[in-house]
Amino acid sequence: MNSDRYQKGWDTLSKVNGKSGEQILAKLKEISPDMARMVIEFPFGDIYSRPGLDLKTRELLTIASLTTLGFPQGELKAHINNALNAGCTKQEILEVMIQMSVYAGFPAALNALFSAQEVFDSLAPSKKGC
Amino acid sequence: MNSDRYQKGWDTLSKVNGKSGEQILAKLKEISPDMARMVIEFPFGDIYSRPGLDLKTRELLTIASLTTLGFPQGELKAHINNALNAGCTKQEILEVMIQMSVYAGFPAALNALFSAQEVFDSLAPSKKGC
Amino acid sequence: MNSDRYQKGWDTLSKVNGKSGEQILAKLKEISPDMARMVIEFPFGDIYSRPGLDLKTRELLTIASLTTLGFPQGELKAHINNALNAGCTKQEILEVMIQMSVYAGFPAALNALFSAQEVFDSLAPSKKGC
Amino acid sequence: MNSDRYQKGWDTLSKVNGKSGEQILAKLKEISPDMARMVIEFPFGDIYSRPGLDLKTRELLTIASLTTLGFPQGELKAHINNALNAGCTKQEILEVMIQMSVYAGFPAALNALFSAQEVFDSLAPSKKGC
Amino acid sequence: MNSDRYQKGWDTLSKVNGKSGEQILAKLKEISPDMARMVIEFPFGDIYSRPGLDLKTRELLTIASLTTLGFPQGELKAHINNALNAGCTKQEILEVMIQMSVYAGFPAALNALFSAQEVFDSLAPSKKGC
Amino acid sequence: MNSDRYQKGWDTLSKVNGKSGEQILAKLKEISPDMARMVIEFPFGDIYSRPGLDLKTRELLTIASLTTLGFPQGELKAHINNALNAGCTKQEILEVMIQMSVYAGFPAALNALFSAQEVFDSLAPSKKGC
Repeated sequence: MNSDRYQKGWDTLSKVNGKSGEQILAKLKEISPDMARMVIEFPFGDIYSRPGLDLKTRELLTIASLTTLGFPQGELKAHINNALNAGCTKQEILEVMIQMSVYAGFPAALNALFSAQEVFDSLAPSKKGC
Repeated sequence: MNSDRYQKGWDTLSKVNGKSGEQILAKLKEISPDMARMVIEFPFGDIYSRPGLDLKTRELLTIASLTTLGFPQGELKAHINNALNAGCTKQEILEVMIQMSVYAGFPAALNALFSAQEVFDSLAPSKKGC
Repeated sequence: MNSDRYQKGWDTLSKVNGKSGEQILAKLKEISPDMARMVIEFPFGDIYSRPGLDLKTRELLTIASLTTLGFPQGELKAHINNALNAGCTKQEILEVMIQMSVYAGFPAALNALFSAQEVFDSLAPSKKGC
Repeated sequence: MNSDRYQKGWDTLSKVNGKSGEQILAKLKEISPDMARMVIEFPFGDIYSRPGLDLKTRELLTIASLTTLGFPQGELKAHINNALNAGCTKQEILEVMIQMSVYAGFPAALNALFSAQEVFDSLAPSKKGC
Repeated sequence: MNSDRYQKGWDTLSKVNGKSGEQILAKLKEISPDMARMVIEFPFGDIYSRPGLDLKTRELLTIASLTTLGFPQGELKAHINNALNAGCTKQEILEVMIQMSVYAGFPAALNALFSAQEVFDSLAPSKKGC
Repeated sequence: MNSDRYQKGWDTLSKVNGKSGEQILAKLKEISPDMARMVIEFPFGDIYSRPGLDLKTRELLTIASLTTLGFPQGELKAHINNALNAGCTKQEILEVMIQMSVYAGFPAALNALFSAQEVFDSLAPSKKGC
């Protein structure tokens, strides 16, 4: 059942999850309900809920990793939204991506910056100035 | 000449650089003095010196990226040292690596943890408890 | 000429190739007829025709590799079709992708699952229940 | 607590785990007991214990993924041992690596083959002929 | 200020840059003017302006690297244009990509070839025969 | 049989191959004679023997790709030797690696430079000045 891990994961996710993350989860549930459950249980229930790093730092670290991987722009956009919901500023998010040019190269950094712009452009007007 | 960027990079690097980073730089200077200069100028002079993120956060982000890449264990060890010098705790460094299991997979996370252990084991006794 | 390798490759490919693979080959022939020939000769003529592993297992292994690489979603979709034609069930294909979350991370696994859903959705109704 | 997942993971792992895997786990426990527990719980408790694919196929898929990643040669060696324990022949393991030359390139395939040779050379004489 | 590096970078870039590269730079300037400046200063001001390799060779090397990375198809298309402007023939560009099948695998090579075809198809009729 | 491709591959390889490449091939033959044959046939017989790019340029492109991949330092060292044998200067080889810092990041470039230094240091005194 693992209901504790799922509940803990859901509670953690609820603090940061935006529309983009919800859409990924809904799509995932259609193709693999087991994987949709494990995405809540392991990353959010087991990992993000651990003490030692706050949610804001965790979201910036995830943006660093996804920028480095390069291919997962859909997940990156979801975590840009999560990062904003966790209290990161737009400038902090962009700084992470700019720094990644040193370690993952300029193409990885540029692709991430373009994904950030798409997310920022899609924000409600009231959040645009953040 | 770019002496301002080099000086700024050197100042930033001096705040965090450990023995492991110094050895990499000395080795690099032998094979390519130009690259040894550019490593100071661009990553440390242009990027790490930017406002928006503190040095401690920047070192954790670099650890996330190097853990994700997987292959650069030498540079990872240098930045584990840098992170400690920037004020990160051992536990924070391990947390970053554990979180990376979600995005870069368990082998990447495990290799990083083994590099962390090597660095922690090599610390002077007075720092071992940190 | 290498006509034996080409013929052997074509015979092997014919056992599994779906519409998606044919489209990739036709597109490839336009830009580089040599490469279109070598794609038949080396992967299918030299490798997939080898004894030691059956075609079904080979297609699952290819799905594991493409899921791990992350970026080649077009080739992944072609091999999801090939795997179905080789006798793999939908559930086996999804299992491979879910397992890859351990080694290549969740974003790689999720992107693969979304590609699987696209392929499954595009199947003729008679195959949908497989 | 998650004791069920840990027990299930341990049971699954016990069917295939060799000396090489045990050493990795023991080393991991020293640096991060939490991660050593999660490596049992998630990959082996949640994933390898799932129905749908047998252990032998799962080990071959893992070898495909680790060969593709390229950098984790230590984990690859552990899973070559696991694969032999799960009933894979040496020839099947080599076939997986040879096939990966198509998707991950020749350097990735060659490095994996060299790791296989190291593992095969270290086997007890009674197993050498397998 | 770094105005010398920017000017030198701009001069180098002007020799090869096509419409596709200009669009990337304009988009980048919107989201991060600092990064748009550093893309001129470091890659083009510091690196491409160095003696030791001519611009034509440098563009082919970049195509090799971007083909190997796999994910940055937008940057790859920009550099296919740059390579043509630097005096590379279409056939040389395709040869680089075909060779990459050996080191980065067939999916990486194929994706690059498809990007090349898109760029070649978009060229003005007068250049199509090149 | 494919004896033409093997012979053509061997002829091409003989023009550039150094001790480091020979050792890799000998080791490979022990674990998989088929793969040792295919490494001659496909990369060297089919690809390097193609017209359109000279051997010197092909070796620099391979160094760009291996630097970008990051993990295959053994193969990289073999190709640094090949590149020298094909007529590349040490400075050209280093330039390729330095340029890769832009696309694959600084850790990839630095690791390649350290491998170059190892190869250069192991050269016979008469070649050291090249």
